Amino acid sequence: MEYQKTAASIRAADSVITKAAYAYHDKLKKPPGSLGRIESLGIRLAGIAGRCPPPVPSRKAVLVFAADHGVAAQAISAYPREATVQMVANVLQGGAAVSVLGRQVDARVVVVDAGVAGDLPEDSALVGGKVGPGTMDISAGPAMTSEQAVQALDLGVRVATHEIERGLDMLACGEVGVGNTTPATAIVAVFTGRPPASFTGIGTGIDAEAVRRKAALIAEAIARNAPDRANGLDVLAKIGGFEIGAMAGAMLAGAAARIPVVLDGLISTSAALIAASIAPAARDYFFAGHRSSEPSHTFALSHLGLEPLLILGMRLGEGTGAALAFGIIEAAARLMAEMATLEGARVSAARA
Amino acid sequence: MEYQKTAASIRAADSVITKAAYAYHDKLKKPPGSLGRIESLGIRLAGIAGRCPPPVPSRKAVLVFAADHGVAAQAISAYPREATVQMVANVLQGGAAVSVLGRQVDARVVVVDAGVAGDLPEDSALVGGKVGPGTMDISAGPAMTSEQAVQALDLGVRVATHEIERGLDMLACGEVGVGNTTPATAIVAVFTGRPPASFTGIGTGIDAEAVRRKAALIAEAIARNAPDRANGLDVLAKIGGFEIGAMAGAMLAGAAARIPVVLDGLISTSAALIAASIAPAARDYFFAGHRSSEPSHTFALSHLGLEPLLILGMRLGEGTGAALAFGIIEAAARLMAEMATLEGARVSAARA
Repeated sequence: MEYQKTAASIRAADSVITKAAYAYHDKLKKPPGSLGRIESLGIRLAGIAGRCPPPVPSRKAVLVFAADHGVAAQAISAYPREATVQMVANVLQGGAAVSVLGRQVDARVVVVDAGVAGDLPEDSALVGGKVGPGTMDISAGPAMTSEQAVQALDLGVRVATHEIERGLDMLACGEVGVGNTTPATAIVAVFTGRPPASFTGIGTGIDAEAVRRKAALIAEAIARNAPDRANGLDVLAKIGGFEIGAMAGAMLAGAAARIPVVLDGLISTSAALIAASIAPAARDYFFAGHRSSEPSHTFALSHLGLEPLLILGMRLGEGTGAALAFGIIEAAARLMAEMATLEGARVSAARA
Repeated sequence: MEYQKTAASIRAADSVITKAAYAYHDKLKKPPGSLGRIESLGIRLAGIAGRCPPPVPSRKAVLVFAADHGVAAQAISAYPREATVQMVANVLQGGAAVSVLGRQVDARVVVVDAGVAGDLPEDSALVGGKVGPGTMDISAGPAMTSEQAVQALDLGVRVATHEIERGLDMLACGEVGVGNTTPATAIVAVFTGRPPASFTGIGTGIDAEAVRRKAALIAEAIARNAPDRANGLDVLAKIGGFEIGAMAGAMLAGAAARIPVVLDGLISTSAALIAASIAPAARDYFFAGHRSSEPSHTFALSHLGLEPLLILGMRLGEGTGAALAFGIIEAAARLMAEMATLEGARVSAARA
């Protein structure tokens, strides 16, 4: 139960430093407020680190958790289940989108087997941790046992803590897992209280008929399992996934270590809903890298009180949207650290 | 009249390669369309370069053109005119926002004196080219002579061409100039045919009364000078600015050299309107780095048919919004160049 200790150690962002950072922005050589949301980002980073100006988050990692889902047998995805193994191999080989973006933004990409059904290639870059060979079908019963839910959370805590110990200033959580928009949408439906049919999306690309079937399966999964939305662990066990639990654990570890945690798309954000349910203060550490084209993602983000940094219609997962947003978050810190201040400056003060 | 030769040499993006790039995206190991607008970006980059996958635009520069404006005497800015000199000095000293972002994204920042009223510090990094000591007051008559408008355009062509010769894959145009949202808004009003009062903004930060006065001055400038919107040079001479003309020239040179040209905020985009009026095919090379909080910027972008990459409420100028967007454009090219393809792949094809 490492995750409980981690969750208990999460403190809210520093409100005194947050206020100081707000004031600090008006000392920088620029018209007040002219950096818009970049200023709010910098202020949040200062509150997170408890330092103003905040440290520049230059050591970055994308943790990619992979797992399979029993519900995929119900043909709710455009891909067969075996594609999970192949996608993991592609990330390990450096040919996946997240591999390319990781190289571009100088972020480590760490792949974790949280519960893939098949055998994965031997690879020194692959972190083992299989909780089970995929979850059970949530439309027929719970995804996993409570013990497995704890194992998944603990796995994420352990992987993230290891990376933090190696040196890490900013963390993103991404995933690979055929069928995982189904449990993710179910989780968003439970926490927001909205009917699944109102926002079930195409995932990797299914037609309208399949979307209807998927929404019905999600509704059935919720009705049958009756997850308790006041209990993140219960929601995870009943309708979640191993990679979702591991992401939630990693997010808790990031918050406990007081570093920014960048969410990716729908599945990553569904994990953030679980994490925030377990430890509400963890929200202070979350940044919405982007808003995907999955309709339920919008509702998940607003439930967390987060505004996405990028809105580019992406729906690839893997952590790609989060990796693209790293540069913007880094810029917010760099601008505070490196811009000239009016005190040491000769720019005439505004006369307005 | 270097700019005319440059404008005449601009060809539209390659439509054959554009189509090939569209098809190429579906060969990459990812669900079709799952990279959203990143795919459209990559397709445009391929059409621009005439190569698929497109070259990665890793050598980047932000050209920052500085100038003063006669209309600033009418108190339409939150800053006194002398602030232009001080802001230029701050960019040269590396303490400006664009300096910080240039270092982060590994872009050269080139500062050009297109027509600052005061004396600028001696600095080897400052490119001279002063067309005049600031423009005339556009509310009382034309901003500049036709000869000066040509000079400003030629200056931009020359500076950009020099940078391209040094080795450049992607160009952004930014500016510094107290009062320059006034001519920029006037230019947008002329090209879009909308009344200035409908979208005049706060610039660096003026109150509602000053915004009303500014809108009235803009309307007066247009009425008095009657710029011909079918003639970009005439619009520039009557109601433009030296830095606006130079940016337009630099944009033409970028388009002629077939490299992506990233627009910044309102003033940069007003220059793009001038450039597109002179050479309509130049539009194919333009990317909207961001959408600023200046209301007229939205109309200027849609007039050019451009969707902004970032919407972060920034209104700082200098090229800051464009510099932040560089990474997204670069990612679009890298993903096409480096992602594994299905041909060489083992990922099961989608069954949907």
